[in-house]
Amino acid sequence: MKMKKCVVLLSGGIDSATVLNLAKKRGFFPHALIFDYNQRHRKEIECAKTLAKKAKAPYKIIRMPFPWKGSSLIDRKNGIPNNRTLKEIKSGIPSTYVPARNLIFLSMALGFAESIKARAIFIGAHSEDYSGYPDCRKEFFEAFKAVLKKGTKSGSSIKVHAPLLNKNKKDIIKTALELSVPLENTWSCYKGGKNPCGACDSCFFRRRAFKELGMKDPYYERS
Amino acid sequence: MKMKKCVVLLSGGIDSATVLNLAKKRGFFPHALIFDYNQRHRKEIECAKTLAKKAKAPYKIIRMPFPWKGSSLIDRKNGIPNNRTLKEIKSGIPSTYVPARNLIFLSMALGFAESIKARAIFIGAHSEDYSGYPDCRKEFFEAFKAVLKKGTKSGSSIKVHAPLLNKNKKDIIKTALELSVPLENTWSCYKGGKNPCGACDSCFFRRRAFKELGMKDPYYERS
Repeated sequence: MKMKKCVVLLSGGIDSATVLNLAKKRGFFPHALIFDYNQRHRKEIECAKTLAKKAKAPYKIIRMPFPWKGSSLIDRKNGIPNNRTLKEIKSGIPSTYVPARNLIFLSMALGFAESIKARAIFIGAHSEDYSGYPDCRKEFFEAFKAVLKKGTKSGSSIKVHAPLLNKNKKDIIKTALELSVPLENTWSCYKGGKNPCGACDSCFFRRRAFKELGMKDPYYERS
Repeated sequence: MKMKKCVVLLSGGIDSATVLNLAKKRGFFPHALIFDYNQRHRKEIECAKTLAKKAKAPYKIIRMPFPWKGSSLIDRKNGIPNNRTLKEIKSGIPSTYVPARNLIFLSMALGFAESIKARAIFIGAHSEDYSGYPDCRKEFFEAFKAVLKKGTKSGSSIKVHAPLLNKNKKDIIKTALELSVPLENTWSCYKGGKNPCGACDSCFFRRRAFKELGMKDPYYERS
């Protein structure tokens, strides 16, 4: 039987790497979409390529630099927040918010899915981003499903899956370990330096999760 | 008083040129977004630039080639339908349909609008495209408004306007004439040759409208 195709939004982080492998486990043949949108941590793109290759998933890199100012993730004039407490992180939408990012990525995934006749789209959004990013919430994905139904030829025959939505980073890593995701090839740090900065919000969640699991971050053990 | 900014999706055709000038008339300061998405009729991009300049609207050209196959508007392997009757045109979704195009354009416009603190987005979609393109229907725009509300920082403070939605090409040209839109600088033909082919669906609607109005297409009278 021919496998059903799906499109996976692959950033190069732990969440999307997990979702890529989860899609395979669920019987899909994943096609990865990787975005080069002028993000500060372009290093994640190399990780995404490696992750796609290891999962034997064909991938496309879409180069579409977002021309907007203001977000500290793409506008180098603004610094990335450092050493924030959980309370500070949860206090509102962070400066790393990129306007309409997930909507644009999902829309591109949808166009690509239609063109390759894929049956599903997978995205690695999850609950720890809830309080911060509006486009990581359940309500957003529900609204997107409605827009997909009305605005495409395929209607609602393409399903949108966000299987990590109710998990935190610790749970996601557990799932990743069960799926043998090569976590040493994932990248999370917003700054995109030689090594993770350890101080940005993204490093905070990653470090805390590995600490809670009592294990060393495999990134530091890569060969 | 400082004028409210808006983002206008500008293709270079009659509809978006009209909407650009309509937004100005409604008191907005329009910022145009022009997409270079690997369309066969890239010629429209030059028209869009001219239209923006004549309307004194700043513009950005977003280069994002859609990597999908199948649509005759971007995939050169497929021919553009020729000399179709109105009945044939209205019979279904044409091969020139580009998966998720308006959704992607609106999402980009939304991200840009948030970043420049614009209050509105204008799009020139209209009723003659109804039967053909699912992403030109009222239901689609309503669904998009909901997704915008859930997925952005600004929530529903950015309004989406499709003021031509219930007009046909003839009515749109009438509006354009009232607004002194430089119609000689607009481009409609899907094929993007030296002159309009006169045979594609887009030429069909344009030709018919000018004929109904008893006037010559100003394109042929440009200096």
